[in-house]
Amino acid sequence: MYLMRIGAPGAEKPVARVDDTTYVDLSDIVDDFDEAFFGSGGLARIAPVVAERTEAGQVTPFSGERIGAPIARPHQILCIGLNYRDHAAETGQAVPDEPILFTKSPNTLVGPNDDVRIPRGSTKPDWEIELGIVIGRRTSYLDSVEQARDAIAGYVVVNDVSERYFQMERGGQWSKGKSAETFNPAGPWLATTDEISDVLNLDMWLDLNGERRQTGNTKTMIFDPYFIVHHLSQFMVLEPGDLINTGTPPGVGMGFRPQVWLQPGDVIELGIDGLGSQRQNVIGPR
Amino acid sequence: MYLMRIGAPGAEKPVARVDDTTYVDLSDIVDDFDEAFFGSGGLARIAPVVAERTEAGQVTPFSGERIGAPIARPHQILCIGLNYRDHAAETGQAVPDEPILFTKSPNTLVGPNDDVRIPRGSTKPDWEIELGIVIGRRTSYLDSVEQARDAIAGYVVVNDVSERYFQMERGGQWSKGKSAETFNPAGPWLATTDEISDVLNLDMWLDLNGERRQTGNTKTMIFDPYFIVHHLSQFMVLEPGDLINTGTPPGVGMGFRPQVWLQPGDVIELGIDGLGSQRQNVIGPR
Repeated sequence: MYLMRIGAPGAEKPVARVDDTTYVDLSDIVDDFDEAFFGSGGLARIAPVVAERTEAGQVTPFSGERIGAPIARPHQILCIGLNYRDHAAETGQAVPDEPILFTKSPNTLVGPNDDVRIPRGSTKPDWEIELGIVIGRRTSYLDSVEQARDAIAGYVVVNDVSERYFQMERGGQWSKGKSAETFNPAGPWLATTDEISDVLNLDMWLDLNGERRQTGNTKTMIFDPYFIVHHLSQFMVLEPGDLINTGTPPGVGMGFRPQVWLQPGDVIELGIDGLGSQRQNVIGPR
Repeated sequence: MYLMRIGAPGAEKPVARVDDTTYVDLSDIVDDFDEAFFGSGGLARIAPVVAERTEAGQVTPFSGERIGAPIARPHQILCIGLNYRDHAAETGQAVPDEPILFTKSPNTLVGPNDDVRIPRGSTKPDWEIELGIVIGRRTSYLDSVEQARDAIAGYVVVNDVSERYFQMERGGQWSKGKSAETFNPAGPWLATTDEISDVLNLDMWLDLNGERRQTGNTKTMIFDPYFIVHHLSQFMVLEPGDLINTGTPPGVGMGFRPQVWLQPGDVIELGIDGLGSQRQNVIGPR
């Protein structure tokens, strides 16, 4: 299934995408794609309904509604840093021995085509295409990496927008440069795991103003999604609906010489095989 | 007012403490002390009710119910590191120029007297008495430190339980050592700001097995609560009900020579002037 949330911010309606032009409305049987939904077996509950309605032709055409993030604001947005070998190199940092964990404020979550707002005082706003993992059940102390497969609801495109001056030069830890409002576009859809035949071989790309800046593939990850979920489950309890941004391939603005930072008026486009694409206008501080 | 939540985990009832023996039940007019409550003017709404019921003698005796954290699971638990000069010195780290921000998983929140569970693989579990700030309204880009006063709902005792091996030696950022389940006892009550005459002069203490380990006073903070809230509001949107742990005074286990780590069977007791005290039994991994 391909889950989407469409409508105005804060009033999104849960649907399942059928194809580029139609969806199955699920708002009569689902409140939201949130912690309660994933934690109560929601995916298994809606699967036959989506199949039945699709088969019966009970579908609705998309008609230009705003697309929200495909999940409600999660309990946590966890992020893995420096998870592609070439990206670690471009930032001048060593390849980590273990996944580097940091967090983003959960209220950074916005739709895939919403504006990205440069925060006040920003001097180094940057982009990061990433594969996002959505957790499907309460998860703690997984015994094996293999078990992580069952803990994952699906995958999503995210732009892990970052402010490098805040991240690196304003007090030691990274969260400060990752948590400004609009800093986590996600979507357009959540692809459930059964829709992605090989999550370890997905092409990903990001264009700035039509120019290709990031090109990558999940096969060059240092720590793969199963490793990450197993690893994090040893340190904390993951809640259903939690989002994990798994790191970015080379080509972020801080890696160029000279470095390239986002400017008001810029257009960011990004996508991952099978997970759709995003398009954000960059706007100035409020 | 002194807000409390009493009852079984996940089924706590919101009340206002009158004194050591009685409370006003608010469960008929408040769902929970959560983001919706604080964000909708809940404090102003209940104040006359609490006064009226107290005056009318509509109070209930405490009868040994479990005490929960005084707020529901927040959107974020933000933490300030190394915020007491002497504590920075005991950890061998420099006094920061700006508040160091890191986060704890929000699902670490437990009641003030709940067990603290040592996580699997832990070798260096440690304690930290801290003053917690609870945010009272959606807060972004405060113009002045002074404005932060109106953004704060109240204060609470927290034990920012920490695993130093996870925090320092397992991958760069601190969240990994701060986010195990039970790692954030809070309460027993949330004192609204009007109940605390001078938040910049509160004595605080922590005993391990009856022996005084931490002695401090909020007047030795490097960055005071108003500075912290103003500062964080420049980097992210604070949500109503968010919890900010403001750092710990000297006397944590990692500061002793030899270092002292928590063990199953230990008893931690801690408190802050006007904010009550906590008592936790330390238990082994599950």
